[in-house]
Amino acid sequence: MPIKRFRPDWTEQAPAPGTFRSIFKYGDPHHFKHPSDAWYKMMKQDFHLSDADFAARGAQGLEPVVLNRPPKLGASQIEALQAIVGPQNVALDDYSRVKYASGKTTEEMLEMRLNIIREVADCVVHPRDKHDVAKIVAYCHAERIPITVFSAGSSVNFGCRPVKGGVTLVMSTHMNKLLEVNDINQTARVQPGMFGPAYEEALNRAPELFGSRHRYTCGHFPQSFEYSTVGGWVVTLGSGQASTYYGDAYDIVFSQEYVTPAGNFKTLDYPATATGPKVNDIMKGSEGTFGILVEVTMKIFRYLPQNRARFSFMFPSWEKAVEASREIMQGEFGKPAIYRISDPEETDRGLKLYGIPGFVDAFLSRRGFKPMQRCLCMGNVEGDKDYTRLVAKKIKAIARRYGAISLGSYAVHKWEHTRYTEPYMREDLGDYGILIDTLEAGVTWDNLHRLHEGVRAYIKGRPDTMCMTHASHFYPQGTNLYFIFIARMNDPDEFRAFQRGIIAKIQEFGGSLSHHHGVGRMIGPWMEEHLGKEQMAVLRALKTHFDPHNIMNPGGQLGLDDPPSVT
Amino acid sequence: MPIKRFRPDWTEQAPAPGTFRSIFKYGDPHHFKHPSDAWYKMMKQDFHLSDADFAARGAQGLEPVVLNRPPKLGASQIEALQAIVGPQNVALDDYSRVKYASGKTTEEMLEMRLNIIREVADCVVHPRDKHDVAKIVAYCHAERIPITVFSAGSSVNFGCRPVKGGVTLVMSTHMNKLLEVNDINQTARVQPGMFGPAYEEALNRAPELFGSRHRYTCGHFPQSFEYSTVGGWVVTLGSGQASTYYGDAYDIVFSQEYVTPAGNFKTLDYPATATGPKVNDIMKGSEGTFGILVEVTMKIFRYLPQNRARFSFMFPSWEKAVEASREIMQGEFGKPAIYRISDPEETDRGLKLYGIPGFVDAFLSRRGFKPMQRCLCMGNVEGDKDYTRLVAKKIKAIARRYGAISLGSYAVHKWEHTRYTEPYMREDLGDYGILIDTLEAGVTWDNLHRLHEGVRAYIKGRPDTMCMTHASHFYPQGTNLYFIFIARMNDPDEFRAFQRGIIAKIQEFGGSLSHHHGVGRMIGPWMEEHLGKEQMAVLRALKTHFDPHNIMNPGGQLGLDDPPSVT
Repeated sequence: MPIKRFRPDWTEQAPAPGTFRSIFKYGDPHHFKHPSDAWYKMMKQDFHLSDADFAARGAQGLEPVVLNRPPKLGASQIEALQAIVGPQNVALDDYSRVKYASGKTTEEMLEMRLNIIREVADCVVHPRDKHDVAKIVAYCHAERIPITVFSAGSSVNFGCRPVKGGVTLVMSTHMNKLLEVNDINQTARVQPGMFGPAYEEALNRAPELFGSRHRYTCGHFPQSFEYSTVGGWVVTLGSGQASTYYGDAYDIVFSQEYVTPAGNFKTLDYPATATGPKVNDIMKGSEGTFGILVEVTMKIFRYLPQNRARFSFMFPSWEKAVEASREIMQGEFGKPAIYRISDPEETDRGLKLYGIPGFVDAFLSRRGFKPMQRCLCMGNVEGDKDYTRLVAKKIKAIARRYGAISLGSYAVHKWEHTRYTEPYMREDLGDYGILIDTLEAGVTWDNLHRLHEGVRAYIKGRPDTMCMTHASHFYPQGTNLYFIFIARMNDPDEFRAFQRGIIAKIQEFGGSLSHHHGVGRMIGPWMEEHLGKEQMAVLRALKTHFDPHNIMNPGGQLGLDDPPSVT
Repeated sequence: MPIKRFRPDWTEQAPAPGTFRSIFKYGDPHHFKHPSDAWYKMMKQDFHLSDADFAARGAQGLEPVVLNRPPKLGASQIEALQAIVGPQNVALDDYSRVKYASGKTTEEMLEMRLNIIREVADCVVHPRDKHDVAKIVAYCHAERIPITVFSAGSSVNFGCRPVKGGVTLVMSTHMNKLLEVNDINQTARVQPGMFGPAYEEALNRAPELFGSRHRYTCGHFPQSFEYSTVGGWVVTLGSGQASTYYGDAYDIVFSQEYVTPAGNFKTLDYPATATGPKVNDIMKGSEGTFGILVEVTMKIFRYLPQNRARFSFMFPSWEKAVEASREIMQGEFGKPAIYRISDPEETDRGLKLYGIPGFVDAFLSRRGFKPMQRCLCMGNVEGDKDYTRLVAKKIKAIARRYGAISLGSYAVHKWEHTRYTEPYMREDLGDYGILIDTLEAGVTWDNLHRLHEGVRAYIKGRPDTMCMTHASHFYPQGTNLYFIFIARMNDPDEFRAFQRGIIAKIQEFGGSLSHHHGVGRMIGPWMEEHLGKEQMAVLRALKTHFDPHNIMNPGGQLGLDDPPSVT
């Protein structure tokens, strides 16, 4: 009889309703993704652990949420809100107040395991439509009640934390419909609280649902796709995994309708216009501090999955991978949709985790693709059939010129299957005191290596800390760097100090403070140094115009005012 | 002996220095482009004229400029400005004050022929560098002296008219250098007063001038290319003739450096960033009302003229031309660089003017391409060789599917030779009381025909008025409409009333007030109704922030404050 190999007792149970864990668990409560045996082995090795360290789970946050903080809004204020949206759409219970105050930062997960609760709203309101939102904002403006907006809650920077209390508006409960597909203009008018999968499915089925001539795609697929909303993409400046072709959320917005304390408006529907600074663009990325996005018209694209051309390569070095990628992005022959390159540590860990057989490893090494040097590249091309063929061919030719060998489409298929599920492992790891977190930055080509080396040196300077980096959103002028670090850490303060240190290093080595996670309250304190006081003054002038009483997502968001309790 | 055919005595002489005509004449003083015999014949016919009407020229503006308006700035103020830039860079003479107060509107030409002078600056200053500009702005801010910026003066909306007097800064005299080509990032750092041809030539010669690996192109070629500057493109939101591929000026800007009364700043160099609303974008299109662009980093592109693929087609109708164009722009196979479709009137006049032989006309008619129905389409594809071939092939296939016949590349070559010279005919026509002017609008596909018909009906409602329309900047969501009208008109008031009527019709039929000419003071009065008061309030809040004393291009620009004397 073979000896049974030890495996940690990964959680397989949906969190009980009302518990902290039910708030911080990612995604579907009933869906789990456990670290593979290879992962487990790697962690033990890298963190100098043994099976004994995985004998018992640490703090799991299984306790029911108890808040014990009476709402500060007066009874008449609560009644006024109830009168607007109906009593069934106003929640005052502890659980709602904590749940809708939380995003998905590692820090929040860590604290919730310890039953630590930060600032919450006094009252959670689920508006039914844009008219409800208009009435609520007008009322709160008059009454000086702070408003925080929560849509899907996938924020990784405390963007939904109601630092000043007041009201949290939940946009995804009712305002989650696709209102119109304009088949002529190729646009879709959608409510901000619509989740990615519902939006994409409706666009794919546009002929059946809207009588369109074509099937469409939204073109925006962030890792949080399944648990993020269209409005969230826009107001936080998200990027999808296929952004290299389709553009970032910023690029995909056609027009927007906002409710603000200074008035409500819809920007005009034009493909381009030369009528002064574009209010449509000024609102993007305002993260709830100017007003509330109540409707958005997005550009949509022909849905042609049958034409997808996939590719993957191994480059002999990070330098070659970067050079080839730059050549591809500047080559004037079209763009891939998904395009990613992994640095040596991510490549090697990835190969191990995907269970690459020893003989393949040996073969690669023999061919000069050595561990901790070689870099994986993968992606696909979307669009017209001849176009996808041409672009894939061009990419292949350039990759070869820079010393890469083609690995076919296997790696991409594999990646596609896990593209949205990686975050599910966070809970398992966290149960045994291991943290995984990410920070990311935009960067020009000529500063890429400096930023990569600078931030990586800081992360690796901490003993027993993994640091995997990839670039996954490409432009002719540069790309992003996405830093993933994994470490054994239990203490929220230790985590905070280390993680804030990474932000400081991104700043120091010339990265943009965020490429697509947004600013929220976590990055806020660095904003003034980053942009400079003149540019921060522009954002503050806009803030003062839209929201003279500072009721819109106040308390450190975008670094516009006082930071929250812990920054 | 053949009878000598009558030809008007078109001007062949450069305007005398110091005259009104030397100010309003377009482009090179020694370059002329006369209407062809076909043009002349057509005008006589359409306007019911005879050779006798072309026997003598009307008002030509040959008189020397005399202003007789003493500058209102005090001697100490003039001295202060001289101390900043040096006395040789401060001009107080009548001619400078009038010249640098003028743009290239038809209205200004008409008025200058009659020696009518509108508002001028008290003093014209030629800053040597950005430090001069910073000192001037700080001084004028303290002294409440209005500042108007003049770069190349190709404005067609009174954007350079110093309505409140004060100082005009001429950016093109000294601040006209290409400072840096970044070969890694594919960007160029350039001073705002650099003219198109010098900029493009330096980029084409980047290997020789900057040691670059590649030759580059700026990708931005407006009709005013030869007499407009990089800074002007950016602050007025211009579009080049190849914008369908390269993007509008808005898209080609990478980062900018501004001097404003509220402080000076440079936006950061990132290919993308999610750090709140983008100040880099907020400044674009501010038309001198927020501050002065003193340096701009532009995206640049591989220069590959050898790969250009040209095409032209005749469509049986405007509807088919529009439908095919939409299909092309939404086809997900890449984009043409130049792409234009002409409406039936423009097509037929164009065919006549280019001297199409009778048998070709008969052939086209027989094949179903009938006069006043058929529509010309032409363009090219730029980029990688295989890419240009593929996109041209796709365009051809779609055009055929919509009933077009290919006309080869002849028409495009012909058009390329005259792409920048059309404005030269204005003076000749004006000498005989015939005006040519243009207005343009951005529009979504689903509103294109309504806008075209609505504006066209208004223009054609005036007896003996030609109206030619084309679309020349394309996007997946729509295009622009460019209306050209030609009429016999001498009276500035009559012209103004008619021309302002067109703007009102563009507004009424749902076009953007401008697609790429900008707003200036001409369109300003329509802005609030167009954008709505909430969005105008956003622009005014930014204005107040940057320029609390309203010294930056005041007097109706962008509709932010009081309009000029005639609107």
